[in-house]
Amino acid sequence: MDAAECAGLIGGRLIGAGDVVIVGIADIAAAKAGDVSFFTGEGQIPATHATCVIVSEGAEFDPATPAVIVVKDPKLGFAKIAARLNTSPKRTGIDPSATIAVDAHVQASFIGPNVVIESSARLAVEVEIHTGTYIGKEVAIGRGTRIFPNCTIYSGTTIGEDCTIHAGCVIGADGFGFVRDGAEGYVKFPQAGGVSIGNNVELGANSCVDRGALGVTEIGDGTKIDNLVQIAHNVKIGKRVVIAAQTGISGSTVVEDDCVIGGQVGMGDHARVLSGAVIGSQAGVLPGKIVRKGIWWGTPVQPLDEYKRQNALVKGISRLKDEVKRLRAIIERSDDE
Amino acid sequence: MDAAECAGLIGGRLIGAGDVVIVGIADIAAAKAGDVSFFTGEGQIPATHATCVIVSEGAEFDPATPAVIVVKDPKLGFAKIAARLNTSPKRTGIDPSATIAVDAHVQASFIGPNVVIESSARLAVEVEIHTGTYIGKEVAIGRGTRIFPNCTIYSGTTIGEDCTIHAGCVIGADGFGFVRDGAEGYVKFPQAGGVSIGNNVELGANSCVDRGALGVTEIGDGTKIDNLVQIAHNVKIGKRVVIAAQTGISGSTVVEDDCVIGGQVGMGDHARVLSGAVIGSQAGVLPGKIVRKGIWWGTPVQPLDEYKRQNALVKGISRLKDEVKRLRAIIERSDDE
Amino acid sequence: MDAAECAGLIGGRLIGAGDVVIVGIADIAAAKAGDVSFFTGEGQIPATHATCVIVSEGAEFDPATPAVIVVKDPKLGFAKIAARLNTSPKRTGIDPSATIAVDAHVQASFIGPNVVIESSARLAVEVEIHTGTYIGKEVAIGRGTRIFPNCTIYSGTTIGEDCTIHAGCVIGADGFGFVRDGAEGYVKFPQAGGVSIGNNVELGANSCVDRGALGVTEIGDGTKIDNLVQIAHNVKIGKRVVIAAQTGISGSTVVEDDCVIGGQVGMGDHARVLSGAVIGSQAGVLPGKIVRKGIWWGTPVQPLDEYKRQNALVKGISRLKDEVKRLRAIIERSDDE
Repeated sequence: MDAAECAGLIGGRLIGAGDVVIVGIADIAAAKAGDVSFFTGEGQIPATHATCVIVSEGAEFDPATPAVIVVKDPKLGFAKIAARLNTSPKRTGIDPSATIAVDAHVQASFIGPNVVIESSARLAVEVEIHTGTYIGKEVAIGRGTRIFPNCTIYSGTTIGEDCTIHAGCVIGADGFGFVRDGAEGYVKFPQAGGVSIGNNVELGANSCVDRGALGVTEIGDGTKIDNLVQIAHNVKIGKRVVIAAQTGISGSTVVEDDCVIGGQVGMGDHARVLSGAVIGSQAGVLPGKIVRKGIWWGTPVQPLDEYKRQNALVKGISRLKDEVKRLRAIIERSDDE
Repeated sequence: MDAAECAGLIGGRLIGAGDVVIVGIADIAAAKAGDVSFFTGEGQIPATHATCVIVSEGAEFDPATPAVIVVKDPKLGFAKIAARLNTSPKRTGIDPSATIAVDAHVQASFIGPNVVIESSARLAVEVEIHTGTYIGKEVAIGRGTRIFPNCTIYSGTTIGEDCTIHAGCVIGADGFGFVRDGAEGYVKFPQAGGVSIGNNVELGANSCVDRGALGVTEIGDGTKIDNLVQIAHNVKIGKRVVIAAQTGISGSTVVEDDCVIGGQVGMGDHARVLSGAVIGSQAGVLPGKIVRKGIWWGTPVQPLDEYKRQNALVKGISRLKDEVKRLRAIIERSDDE
Repeated sequence: MDAAECAGLIGGRLIGAGDVVIVGIADIAAAKAGDVSFFTGEGQIPATHATCVIVSEGAEFDPATPAVIVVKDPKLGFAKIAARLNTSPKRTGIDPSATIAVDAHVQASFIGPNVVIESSARLAVEVEIHTGTYIGKEVAIGRGTRIFPNCTIYSGTTIGEDCTIHAGCVIGADGFGFVRDGAEGYVKFPQAGGVSIGNNVELGANSCVDRGALGVTEIGDGTKIDNLVQIAHNVKIGKRVVIAAQTGISGSTVVEDDCVIGGQVGMGDHARVLSGAVIGSQAGVLPGKIVRKGIWWGTPVQPLDEYKRQNALVKGISRLKDEVKRLRAIIERSDDE
């Protein structure tokens, strides 16, 4: 790709040579000749050996830089060019050590060593299933989805197109539902539902999505989930939701489209996070709570402004205590008079 | 099973036809002919196509429902019938790709592809070990226990009967114990103990139970543990304990029988949670703390009532501050006079 | 090893017979003849059958104990002797079911069943790779490092010497970086960097270390990490750092040498924890925060003393409220007069 093509791809204004060839990506300090890089700030761009730098209006660049592309969001532009440049060869072939049921419908381009694919599973074209991953009965996986090593996809799970499932994920294990039977202990509530994951979803390493109890656990198109996240049975996650690492979402909770959830957040069951809400890291959402659009913080969650105001008030208790002491002294003195 | 058998199984009072046949389970809205469902509330049951509905005294049902069973706890009754109806075929057979030590004692009904079973392991009858799971030396597994794909059971672990271990669990890895040796850094404290898990225990996906340092980490009969939970070395969990997702319990802590622990709870080492305690999600138990029977909340944990009272007081700081301001104004005015 | 050798190894003062032979380790109560044990307190040592007990100055021991070794830190001494006594046989051999690329450079002493080693990986002597672990392209692993079952080491990861990576770890999965593209949703930011782990590092079960986005995620020599920990892209962890279970560290955060981080701690991105800082369990470090040497607690983290003082003030609100009420009564009474 040359700089002119890069500029075209991201709708940017090219300054300099359009015909310099871009072969790699790097951050501004590490970039070398042939690399494209980006700078998000205003003002002077740090010295760089990049052949092409993507900047926003107002950045001051070294006029010796071979090519500069001006766009509104340089980081986004860089990400798009990087995706296009990514020429890491696709994996292909069916490893002879894979165990594939005779009635599985496998069009996948890559099945790695020791993969197991059970009866009636359906894998579309361009699917990659990496080493040691287990695909249960009647699992359906859409075109272009890649599942990395040592994942376990239980029976009845549906995964859409162009998803990335990182190593160690477990999808479709039983939800956590038990009914107490007096002194006898717990009887398992049936966990007989499924999991449905949309298109273009990313699931981080060692994350878990449980199957529904009687219904389906759902994750919408374009949602991105980090490592070690727990999605319980019957949860519904909307489209384009971002969930950072180690967050846990309890049973039947709904997270609507375009929410952003920080890391280590805990959500009780049957809560509902309305479209566009942003929840800060380590926050706690009580069972049944409705969280509206806006920025939320703390346990239990409250609007960020209120959280800050409350924190400032707590910080001020010491001063308040001193003030009360002072007033008491005045009163007692005047009582003495 | 017909409705009369269902009623008999759960000790319920049958209203309607005892001879209608029940073949499936569903929630009230999704149920179709042949299904059993349940309704826990009082009042009017939503419209349903279920052939049999389990209800509690006082529920108002459509008289056209073929069979209704009245019991004290409809959800429990439903769970028991569902367990009986569950005819998902048991897995059987020893996959030729499994690697089984010649001196392992394997009576198991199912050993999946790529399973590895080391020397002197003992697997009782009706045990299922699924794809890619590793069973270390001298591991003992009781009758009817199922271990799902890609688990790692380190040497010296004992697991009882009728347990369910979900995919990705790690049982018997080294506990986290190191001794600081000045500027040299850390020397590993020996992690030479074992793990002992009772009967009828469920362990959620990607959870970890570490081996004891010099003693044994124990989990009692009937205890249910969710996904991504961490149980450290030498912890003792009693019987019929419930632990929700992402909770972590530090070394040598004891959780007695019949406790209920929420999600994302953290417990320090050498704490003791007495029988019957309930600890809310995201709570924190300090090292060495004794938590008595009752409901506990917050970090550090306090009785729920106290937690609520304290929270209300914090919420009231603003008003308190206003009140102090008002008093000061009165005092200063009277001083001026 | 006899008791004299033990004393020599740890620089302790031997009391009693130097020629008694030590073959095992145990805690003081469980020890039997032939075992070495230790006692860290002062005063009377509990009754024991240990052949050798390691104690500190001032401990009162049964004069019938065959050998006693007096050192400054008995637990450290015990750990060192235990490490020397550990004669658990090393695993050796290359299992025929392993899939090893022809151009991988494998000097390892043990490659377990179903291990997969990709092209150009380099495994030094005395390396052990256990059952079902996946080693990606161009991964380099130093002498004596052991990787337990079902781990996934993505391409481009470097691991030093004498490391222990427990089962289920995922090293080098993509970091969590996306750029919002308006209503379209998210575009993946390239995750093209690597992971570099030093010597003598321990990583607990099911922990995750993500690859750098454009740079490298680093973990320094002698650092010990517990189970289910999340280390995000471009994080730099120094030497001899201890991180307890379920802690999460966000992108580009730096933890300098000799820090101690509790369990379930959350750190925002681009924070910096300076050398020697200690952070209590469940604490939260805000993005960009600098945490200095000392003991820190709470969310957001504050010095432990301040945290305690603040907590005491909050606990005192009730009393403060009563005091204000009392003052108001006085004022109103005097107003009435």
